[in-house]
Amino acid sequence: MSIPLMNQLGVVKRNIVRADAAVVDHLGRLGSATVHEAMGRVGLLKPYMRPIRTGASVAGSAVTVLLHPGDNWMLHVAAEQIQPGDIVVAAISAECSDGYFGDLLATSFMARGARALVIDAGVRDVRVLKEMGFPVWSKAISAKGTIKATLGSVNIPVLCAGALVNPGDAVVADDDGIVIVPAADAVRVAQVAQKREDLEGEKRARLASGVLGLDMYDMRGALERAGLKYID
Amino acid sequence: MSIPLMNQLGVVKRNIVRADAAVVDHLGRLGSATVHEAMGRVGLLKPYMRPIRTGASVAGSAVTVLLHPGDNWMLHVAAEQIQPGDIVVAAISAECSDGYFGDLLATSFMARGARALVIDAGVRDVRVLKEMGFPVWSKAISAKGTIKATLGSVNIPVLCAGALVNPGDAVVADDDGIVIVPAADAVRVAQVAQKREDLEGEKRARLASGVLGLDMYDMRGALERAGLKYID
Amino acid sequence: MSIPLMNQLGVVKRNIVRADAAVVDHLGRLGSATVHEAMGRVGLLKPYMRPIRTGASVAGSAVTVLLHPGDNWMLHVAAEQIQPGDIVVAAISAECSDGYFGDLLATSFMARGARALVIDAGVRDVRVLKEMGFPVWSKAISAKGTIKATLGSVNIPVLCAGALVNPGDAVVADDDGIVIVPAADAVRVAQVAQKREDLEGEKRARLASGVLGLDMYDMRGALERAGLKYID
Amino acid sequence: MSIPLMNQLGVVKRNIVRADAAVVDHLGRLGSATVHEAMGRVGLLKPYMRPIRTGASVAGSAVTVLLHPGDNWMLHVAAEQIQPGDIVVAAISAECSDGYFGDLLATSFMARGARALVIDAGVRDVRVLKEMGFPVWSKAISAKGTIKATLGSVNIPVLCAGALVNPGDAVVADDDGIVIVPAADAVRVAQVAQKREDLEGEKRARLASGVLGLDMYDMRGALERAGLKYID
Amino acid sequence: MSIPLMNQLGVVKRNIVRADAAVVDHLGRLGSATVHEAMGRVGLLKPYMRPIRTGASVAGSAVTVLLHPGDNWMLHVAAEQIQPGDIVVAAISAECSDGYFGDLLATSFMARGARALVIDAGVRDVRVLKEMGFPVWSKAISAKGTIKATLGSVNIPVLCAGALVNPGDAVVADDDGIVIVPAADAVRVAQVAQKREDLEGEKRARLASGVLGLDMYDMRGALERAGLKYID
Amino acid sequence: MSIPLMNQLGVVKRNIVRADAAVVDHLGRLGSATVHEAMGRVGLLKPYMRPIRTGASVAGSAVTVLLHPGDNWMLHVAAEQIQPGDIVVAAISAECSDGYFGDLLATSFMARGARALVIDAGVRDVRVLKEMGFPVWSKAISAKGTIKATLGSVNIPVLCAGALVNPGDAVVADDDGIVIVPAADAVRVAQVAQKREDLEGEKRARLASGVLGLDMYDMRGALERAGLKYID
Repeated sequence: MSIPLMNQLGVVKRNIVRADAAVVDHLGRLGSATVHEAMGRVGLLKPYMRPIRTGASVAGSAVTVLLHPGDNWMLHVAAEQIQPGDIVVAAISAECSDGYFGDLLATSFMARGARALVIDAGVRDVRVLKEMGFPVWSKAISAKGTIKATLGSVNIPVLCAGALVNPGDAVVADDDGIVIVPAADAVRVAQVAQKREDLEGEKRARLASGVLGLDMYDMRGALERAGLKYID
Repeated sequence: MSIPLMNQLGVVKRNIVRADAAVVDHLGRLGSATVHEAMGRVGLLKPYMRPIRTGASVAGSAVTVLLHPGDNWMLHVAAEQIQPGDIVVAAISAECSDGYFGDLLATSFMARGARALVIDAGVRDVRVLKEMGFPVWSKAISAKGTIKATLGSVNIPVLCAGALVNPGDAVVADDDGIVIVPAADAVRVAQVAQKREDLEGEKRARLASGVLGLDMYDMRGALERAGLKYID
Repeated sequence: MSIPLMNQLGVVKRNIVRADAAVVDHLGRLGSATVHEAMGRVGLLKPYMRPIRTGASVAGSAVTVLLHPGDNWMLHVAAEQIQPGDIVVAAISAECSDGYFGDLLATSFMARGARALVIDAGVRDVRVLKEMGFPVWSKAISAKGTIKATLGSVNIPVLCAGALVNPGDAVVADDDGIVIVPAADAVRVAQVAQKREDLEGEKRARLASGVLGLDMYDMRGALERAGLKYID
Repeated sequence: MSIPLMNQLGVVKRNIVRADAAVVDHLGRLGSATVHEAMGRVGLLKPYMRPIRTGASVAGSAVTVLLHPGDNWMLHVAAEQIQPGDIVVAAISAECSDGYFGDLLATSFMARGARALVIDAGVRDVRVLKEMGFPVWSKAISAKGTIKATLGSVNIPVLCAGALVNPGDAVVADDDGIVIVPAADAVRVAQVAQKREDLEGEKRARLASGVLGLDMYDMRGALERAGLKYID
Repeated sequence: MSIPLMNQLGVVKRNIVRADAAVVDHLGRLGSATVHEAMGRVGLLKPYMRPIRTGASVAGSAVTVLLHPGDNWMLHVAAEQIQPGDIVVAAISAECSDGYFGDLLATSFMARGARALVIDAGVRDVRVLKEMGFPVWSKAISAKGTIKATLGSVNIPVLCAGALVNPGDAVVADDDGIVIVPAADAVRVAQVAQKREDLEGEKRARLASGVLGLDMYDMRGALERAGLKYID
Repeated sequence: MSIPLMNQLGVVKRNIVRADAAVVDHLGRLGSATVHEAMGRVGLLKPYMRPIRTGASVAGSAVTVLLHPGDNWMLHVAAEQIQPGDIVVAAISAECSDGYFGDLLATSFMARGARALVIDAGVRDVRVLKEMGFPVWSKAISAKGTIKATLGSVNIPVLCAGALVNPGDAVVADDDGIVIVPAADAVRVAQVAQKREDLEGEKRARLASGVLGLDMYDMRGALERAGLKYID
């Protein structure tokens, strides 16, 4: 983080290093649960973040925004920084459930090529957003609108729903949650995650045939050594 | 509020002044987000109130009920006061998530012409309610039933999920939330809201074409004066 | 509870007395709301427990599991104790929203004949779980995985989401919530619940015709004696 | 409420009718629990409102303020409306835990004769506030300061922590909570509350001597009729 | 639990087997943290339960009560079952923060020899309760009173703040929380806890002299084997 | 953050750059509220973090620890890295309220010269901790102990209660909360904060004499321009 935190208010960083697009897409196909395991179980946003429509599954590179309570001015500033394949990740400087984002901003974001919005606050016009097919993960849904009066920043490191997000990081979001992969780690994480995925098909077949995890993972010895007792 | 608060326990007010039906319907078509903006961003119920089925969108005039924890007796009293086009708004005198309302009461409310229920507590039989097509916004879903032992009141001013609701007020409810418009303000709010709505179509088209909100709303000067800095 | 609580860590009880299968199925058809009333309004899990897919409605006999925070080892041990018709009820020894259960464990549980999982924690792979048709009620959805390091127990009495569950108890779960019926009470509860259900059809028809609950339940006298006043 | 809600943004009402000072003091001596009973158990703020210092016990007439999230401008406007014996009751138009009030504002409020602050948000400088002896009831304590940019209103009806407060209402606050008595009801509530209080001394003496409430309140018959069974 | 759950509504069990008084006192001197460890880290009430006055530290045998929301009738019934050395443990059949207990009931409980109250709800008159020196652990403080209308039960097994409490169990409560020790386990738990306690004095002296836990507990090898790396 | 996040599990960084001790002490005298303002209102931990004893006021340089749910092993590792004047800041990789820290660890931390602990989880032995005079800010108090089985890290960047903390940062903690000042910003923040503080004495005197903030801060014009209306 070369930008000192105190200087980050009122700053828009235009040139950011985005995670490789092919790797981002690869991570998206693997899904948040597998990627999170491959990360060593770090980088997950808190589970109160929920999709406005289940079934959506996307990945992209982060354009970050820091907003203030009840003020969505910086989302317009962020729109200009969006490149095709980006996901906007919006943090708020305090707890807020207002509806920062609706169908007009979604129209603008889609026109810029954004794949989704992840926001630690509320959104509105959700029926229209679903019809438009623009995926959103948020903390709340609220008809309460916002004003445009206070500067925030775009493309600085932000803390969003308990996770540190740097601009350009890979963002993987689906029904299970949202995981952030640092751009520099994306290739390696994708490799580890793919290996996990490759093993799953065979495991699933064996479990479906009635083999127990106790045997497939060879757990009985460890359980006995740990002291597990069977009684009747 | 001509009825002193202390005299409101055990009272049913039969004659209430309802917001004009055509205006109520107009507000409903505009939706909670637009109406809430037109209200000056007041009158919204807290966002923990959620529809049992997404996609429902209704408006009506409020029949209010004050209930006590775990007791739904007054919902039966309220049923008799329902007129076609009403929405029952139920407040509880303390926090409670019990299931106050199920398919039998919904049958009765529908027979009376009610359009929806808004309740700061729980409901049950939600699968049947959805099949019946009766819209409900509630704080919780719970199989826990209630008793019928304590008097409350019907058609007194109530505080429901953080909003003041007077009997006869217009209620606008959809996926974004629930907003209350005082009956006396309904015409003016509908006018202001319609003006907002009229402008949205053109804005949407421009944003979809790639015009940025920064330019469409002419924000660049204000952002610069506020001190926004672009860095590379 | 013949097993002292202090001796229950690291114990798997193999032989449990399950509620009668036909009675369990009967309870399932009646649904959680009706069964909960018949129980005298006890035995309900807290309403923060939600289905991952609405519309599911199941009943089964409980296989109980006590897990520790962030550790799902015992779910594999539990799998071996599942018999067709069982529902696994998983309690955690402290608050935790991690994703304990995903598509691999679901495959194994289904192969053993499990009907559902009820877990006071999080699950993941929810899109796949829904596609598989395996019903789950949980406190959270989270991509965060778990480890396999700490012993818990299987088929001991557990406290799950505020309810005491003994192995073999009948579990009734649907959109309204989850209710636990002690195996010894199942027959009687089913009888009481059926009687309630038998009366509902006629009531529904009368309410649909416009008869008020005030009259159908003969409430007007009691309301007047309690002091209810009608004003204009 | 003669002021329509939509016109209340940006309004300061200078002349308000305050509850009679002697009655307010009387209510304060009786305490929030006794007064709340005398009110018919209405008018209580939610119990998340806590004193910054236990042991404080005050009563006063309400000067109300409506603030916006993160903005305390109107507290300065309110200061001018304070008369000796007043308690400032501050509501926020959305959830916020920022520290709106510290030692400087407390100095000003005390100079104007304010007896306390009740605020549905956060305060700071709490160690100094305690040293100054200025009582505060709040939702939170937070070092996070606020800005001065958005108009609110002073002396309009507000919803504070779940209760409706009109300017001039009597406010009774102590360790048990905060109760609002409408100015018009103050005399009657004080009389009812005093009667309750007069009976308490004798009851306390009897209970201290070992008489059971079961006998003192003559409950045994009612319990038996309700079906209470004693078993060994 | 020889009493079936469905038959427990409206029951008072008079003869209960209390944990040995000397052992209870011994557990009280050891404190909740040490006893909880000795229990194998089970039996703790949730940490939202807080003392109304810090510094209190008590132990006693449980008299249990099941109450309903907003109704404290059974606390009067429970008073008669109190013997010197008892602690009343009150559970509520649903979430409720009302003030069930105040100075009058405390006077009666003290006259009967009760040592404390543990209640999963609210209490009031807290300033007086502190002056009386009657210890209370509760979920909330609230001026909101309760009615006396619904039967509950006394001395049945209850679920209180996430723990199962049987009548007669040892209850240990202090600033760290509340732990329940089944009467049958009390002697053994006290022995295990005492052994832990005996070792603490020496450990404390070594740590105070600057010895690190890393060395005192011989952790360095295990940490290295687990893969801990020191970098500069 | 030169250490990639994925490599930070199981790492202890021995050499960290601490904020200048004199500056840290200066920040401590200014207090969290003034320092937070000087920071531009960033860097504050969430207000659910509360001191176990009010009145404590400390500042120090951060030794950071990342712990896992229910496991305090790394606190022993951290002890060795403490230098006189440090404050240990402990983050947990998931939500947890267990009691990670008690009187033995406090003895060890004090022997190493630690000034305080800030932990986003629970602590225990709080009565003894208060007697020892060791200040702690925590999310919870809980008798529930922890195990020592899982590696975390020491002196890596951590997210604690919503704030990013780097090892060596200045930590200012008092009754109003906890604020983190990056080591590189400490001198400048102290200067800005001191200027604010210097102006406060004169302001306080003027407000105490009855001057209104409206006049002292010259707000009347701005309020009028914003549209504030006075009515009678």
